[in-house]
Amino acid sequence: MKTAIYRKSNFCSAHRLYRKEFSDEQNLAIFGKCSSPNYHGHNYTLIVKVVGETDPETGFVIDMKILAQLIKEHVEDKFDHKNLNLDTEYFKTLNPTAENIAKIIYEILRPKIDARFELGIRLYETEKNFVDYPA
Amino acid sequence: MKTAIYRKSNFCSAHRLYRKEFSDEQNLAIFGKCSSPNYHGHNYTLIVKVVGETDPETGFVIDMKILAQLIKEHVEDKFDHKNLNLDTEYFKTLNPTAENIAKIIYEILRPKIDARFELGIRLYETEKNFVDYPA
Amino acid sequence: MKTAIYRKSNFCSAHRLYRKEFSDEQNLAIFGKCSSPNYHGHNYTLIVKVVGETDPETGFVIDMKILAQLIKEHVEDKFDHKNLNLDTEYFKTLNPTAENIAKIIYEILRPKIDARFELGIRLYETEKNFVDYPA
Amino acid sequence: MKTAIYRKSNFCSAHRLYRKEFSDEQNLAIFGKCSSPNYHGHNYTLIVKVVGETDPETGFVIDMKILAQLIKEHVEDKFDHKNLNLDTEYFKTLNPTAENIAKIIYEILRPKIDARFELGIRLYETEKNFVDYPA
Amino acid sequence: MKTAIYRKSNFCSAHRLYRKEFSDEQNLAIFGKCSSPNYHGHNYTLIVKVVGETDPETGFVIDMKILAQLIKEHVEDKFDHKNLNLDTEYFKTLNPTAENIAKIIYEILRPKIDARFELGIRLYETEKNFVDYPA
Amino acid sequence: MKTAIYRKSNFCSAHRLYRKEFSDEQNLAIFGKCSSPNYHGHNYTLIVKVVGETDPETGFVIDMKILAQLIKEHVEDKFDHKNLNLDTEYFKTLNPTAENIAKIIYEILRPKIDARFELGIRLYETEKNFVDYPA
Repeated sequence: MKTAIYRKSNFCSAHRLYRKEFSDEQNLAIFGKCSSPNYHGHNYTLIVKVVGETDPETGFVIDMKILAQLIKEHVEDKFDHKNLNLDTEYFKTLNPTAENIAKIIYEILRPKIDARFELGIRLYETEKNFVDYPA
Repeated sequence: MKTAIYRKSNFCSAHRLYRKEFSDEQNLAIFGKCSSPNYHGHNYTLIVKVVGETDPETGFVIDMKILAQLIKEHVEDKFDHKNLNLDTEYFKTLNPTAENIAKIIYEILRPKIDARFELGIRLYETEKNFVDYPA
Repeated sequence: MKTAIYRKSNFCSAHRLYRKEFSDEQNLAIFGKCSSPNYHGHNYTLIVKVVGETDPETGFVIDMKILAQLIKEHVEDKFDHKNLNLDTEYFKTLNPTAENIAKIIYEILRPKIDARFELGIRLYETEKNFVDYPA
Repeated sequence: MKTAIYRKSNFCSAHRLYRKEFSDEQNLAIFGKCSSPNYHGHNYTLIVKVVGETDPETGFVIDMKILAQLIKEHVEDKFDHKNLNLDTEYFKTLNPTAENIAKIIYEILRPKIDARFELGIRLYETEKNFVDYPA
Repeated sequence: MKTAIYRKSNFCSAHRLYRKEFSDEQNLAIFGKCSSPNYHGHNYTLIVKVVGETDPETGFVIDMKILAQLIKEHVEDKFDHKNLNLDTEYFKTLNPTAENIAKIIYEILRPKIDARFELGIRLYETEKNFVDYPA
Repeated sequence: MKTAIYRKSNFCSAHRLYRKEFSDEQNLAIFGKCSSPNYHGHNYTLIVKVVGETDPETGFVIDMKILAQLIKEHVEDKFDHKNLNLDTEYFKTLNPTAENIAKIIYEILRPKIDARFELGIRLYETEKNFVDYPA
């Protein structure tokens, strides 16, 4: 049977949900207060899951130090204390919803982690709203 | 691949675990202190999971505001600051265990949420005891 | 300088806020949904603070095992899985608000703990509402 | 002896720490990543403390529903899903550090709460960084 | 559909990650600060999941009191306030990584719980690092 | 009025409560399972409080980055993944109770922080047991 390991981290970012082709009024109707023009922000909590066999030599599925470093380098350093819409390459046209941020993080990390491991992303936007990708 | 979204909420209720056809002594033997005759109560924490495709237009699986409103109207307003055994229609004969409360919430919400979405209920009775329905 | 030690515990109780001399309608006007006639309930979280000098022999202000046992015997065993209004001697006429429950717990524990220690009670009714007695 | 009551709430805001009279480079040297030009954001957690005598009639220091409504109207509605620097009147020139936000919230709420009560503000910027005003 | 129930508990243990056939220097290279020779320790949080049908008579999947007692007797009493490497039979040669501790707990509890129930173990070594066995 | 700022951090250590001049049996009688001879351990959570005036120039009481670095260098690097009794200079004869660890951390940090600031230490040994020094 396989084992899942999880690593939790955090980043604090500004974002705005809207579509450029809509007016502020239309965006407000669809995205509510999340479309506030001058951005708002969150303390995002990220949990990365890696599923695989435990190595009998080390007792590790994957070295947590290496996983933590991958998350720091490829997610935290890109997103923390940034404006997701303006400061990252990913959300120029893609709406930075929790669903889309989780999917982007999956796509960033997937090629960095050996293909024999399954990968899962949980992202908390607030304590009350969170997502898993894939489900 | 699908995405799961989660919405957390709370309700504070009194309940008692027992079967009417049993004596208080019998109920105590089976249900322990949870059968205390004058009720006790909990701060229940509810997490509703909805699984589906992310809409490429909005970046949402489902609009969290609509989901939060459904939970408020159909669960919180019925259960919060109520006695589950006496004040709700669901637990007149059904024992209000965490397992049964989660199942009832599933049955309340399932017809309110489009059938293309999977639905899951997590219910914390205390920080130490919780259930998922379905598993 | 003195040291404060804290011990956290929990009890799950039903209660109702109301005054017998008022009608249900009057109680509703004053106490809101907390006056719901058939009771509701909470997972109360209790934090007992004891302030004193650290004993140079043991490195303890007070033996945490003894404090935990006092809390269990005199608070948890009386309040847990009980109806505060009906099953305890303290809230026959006194309204079981968080303020009053904290004060009663203070009065229960104060004579059990040596007078050279200061005593403080924090009581969480929910994660969002809590009190300290004394302030 | 007096009792303290506490009410917890949340708001999600964007902000940037900087002084207009400094260059971006100077602000980076002084404020670090918190000076990122396009803003970042936080899930702020606010705990408002009110200290007073418990009313023997109601068992309340202050009605928690009224306090919660004051916080919603005068803090959450002004700060939630807003850019603190751009969308509020308070931080046009004042740096929106946790220290200053807590002080502003104190000054907003102080005249709304009867002078016989003491008032205290705790503000969490993240789970790791928080402040009390007054200390 | 089946229901999952979860029971949370805790134990505080010392451990060291290393292989006897390696030198301290080699262990440090592979296991980092977790190989510190004189041990370090953790507040482990254990969540045991049991999946099955809800008994229509009781409304329980399994009696939580019985499950809690099994965990206390077979896990907490063996691991709590112990050195996992020195004081338990399980980690004389097996490295006490979170992955291996979760697997051992699974193997301890599996024969104690009726085979018609599925069993799952979640183990938090810290708030940031945790594992599931099986995945 | 002054402002208090708080910085939270963590360290994972092994320890044992006992006095060398007592036998294991005597230590067990006095210190209970905390005297287990081969050590046990905890995820300690440390909250450092600094009280002072907010600098009108920066809006900081003290630069949180500098405080975090002080804690890392003088507390975490000394205590994390260490055996408090064996690997540190502080607990050769002093019992590493939560009370004493908090006092030692106070004494380590006090000379590193400007005398115009008040300093306070909160240390959680577990989620249920914690101390403040000074009270």
